[in-house]
Amino acid sequence: MLVSERKVMIEWGDCDPAGIVFYPRYFAFFDASTGHLFRTAGLEKFDLHERYDIVGFPMVDTRAKFSIPSRYGEEVQIKTQATGFGKSSFNIHHQLFKADGQLAIECWETRVWLGQHPDKAKPKPIPREVIALLSGTDSNTIKNN
Amino acid sequence: MLVSERKVMIEWGDCDPAGIVFYPRYFAFFDASTGHLFRTAGLEKFDLHERYDIVGFPMVDTRAKFSIPSRYGEEVQIKTQATGFGKSSFNIHHQLFKADGQLAIECWETRVWLGQHPDKAKPKPIPREVIALLSGTDSNTIKNN
Amino acid sequence: MLVSERKVMIEWGDCDPAGIVFYPRYFAFFDASTGHLFRTAGLEKFDLHERYDIVGFPMVDTRAKFSIPSRYGEEVQIKTQATGFGKSSFNIHHQLFKADGQLAIECWETRVWLGQHPDKAKPKPIPREVIALLSGTDSNTIKNN
Amino acid sequence: MLVSERKVMIEWGDCDPAGIVFYPRYFAFFDASTGHLFRTAGLEKFDLHERYDIVGFPMVDTRAKFSIPSRYGEEVQIKTQATGFGKSSFNIHHQLFKADGQLAIECWETRVWLGQHPDKAKPKPIPREVIALLSGTDSNTIKNN
Repeated sequence: MLVSERKVMIEWGDCDPAGIVFYPRYFAFFDASTGHLFRTAGLEKFDLHERYDIVGFPMVDTRAKFSIPSRYGEEVQIKTQATGFGKSSFNIHHQLFKADGQLAIECWETRVWLGQHPDKAKPKPIPREVIALLSGTDSNTIKNN
Repeated sequence: MLVSERKVMIEWGDCDPAGIVFYPRYFAFFDASTGHLFRTAGLEKFDLHERYDIVGFPMVDTRAKFSIPSRYGEEVQIKTQATGFGKSSFNIHHQLFKADGQLAIECWETRVWLGQHPDKAKPKPIPREVIALLSGTDSNTIKNN
Repeated sequence: MLVSERKVMIEWGDCDPAGIVFYPRYFAFFDASTGHLFRTAGLEKFDLHERYDIVGFPMVDTRAKFSIPSRYGEEVQIKTQATGFGKSSFNIHHQLFKADGQLAIECWETRVWLGQHPDKAKPKPIPREVIALLSGTDSNTIKNN
Repeated sequence: MLVSERKVMIEWGDCDPAGIVFYPRYFAFFDASTGHLFRTAGLEKFDLHERYDIVGFPMVDTRAKFSIPSRYGEEVQIKTQATGFGKSSFNIHHQLFKADGQLAIECWETRVWLGQHPDKAKPKPIPREVIALLSGTDSNTIKNN
């Protein structure tokens, strides 16, 4: 699988009165990391909307386990990859590492590939080439299960 | 002028490692207070978009002076009013009070009434009835200067 | 179990370019709802720090399932309760309802009761009276399992 | 004067239903940019607290003028510099540029150098070496006016 990586500087405004990152901020980091995975795969989110006639790929289920807190001024690293594809949903896995390499947080996402419809957005099949690009494999050989 | 009031509970996630509200959060409070002023005046933001063919009334200039900090668990009160109308812009004034009545923050906004255009959003004249409703006066007697 | 309820107005700044609440904002809502549960139980978060010699009760594991999106201007209701107590951790369950009563989101939290230590914060047993108050039962009869 | 520069990627969660950055997010960007200026000057915010016995340098007055909106996926550049020093307050100026070099936003800040006191935080004189480092001049020759 394709793995994207990005560094995030923990800012003053990310932290709470206990001096550690306010955990909802991590979900904002992870959402941006999923965007970064798409960009790394050659897929720009707004392009996707037009190219594949979707409204987006909203979150349907996410979970995070927090092992080690982070503080203002730390630079952490987030590694992100797609871990599975259904017909119209897909799974993402994030790992957030401290500067010393320790795994501090893990996060799992399930998102749905949501198509435009006259009345109401509806899930639609994820295109093979999207799966191939997110997988880091050749789009000619990947099979959409 | 019509004055709208609302109370805001300061939450844990609004505060920074110094234990006081992270000041950008106040601007989110004030933006919501401007929305509240419109609702109080009988103008729902989304209705406005359709009724008056605008994309919104984005901020062009805002300033805030911070006199007293607030902390987690405090309930503050924000008073908001329109203080002037130009052809296609208007001014808003917010005052944030502590529970004991002390004035803690003042904020001034200038926003523009932004119309839909085929190519690009463009300022357009603020309708008389919007000015009348935000002013708390009779729309038959108000004059759009 | 004691159930606390609060209403949340969805503000413009809570929503993303798809027009729906940016999901990390829900976690900020839920964190505030856990704070509200404690207040409803007669436990103020900052009082707790001093009364029980803790640094707080940080999140160790949280999951949310998103069924129905919400938009600017909606008022939603969040119901929150403690659903279980371990020696030094506890579980919280949130349900977010739309104005029409539909269940839109569920969220589960596991938090740890974290005590002050000279070197490093360490989990410590949750006091019986805290469990009793969060349970909505008499503290004389509750047993800390 | 020392000028620090940093790039900021506009993320999905920074933007509102109009598709443009929700303006309070810019203040979070600017606060981080002031932190970045200090780091660039060799001054780490947390070090400062201990080295100079301060609680921080909170905002007392800030203003921003918004000329051009930015959207998801854009990378903007923020240039930051100190523009003046009083006895215990200082001024910061931010300029946010689009990728094509256009100036999109300007922001001005006045912050206060806030010392620890047994009872209550109180402004204290900004050390000469801090002024020299933020000015990008030799600390031996700078004079604290």
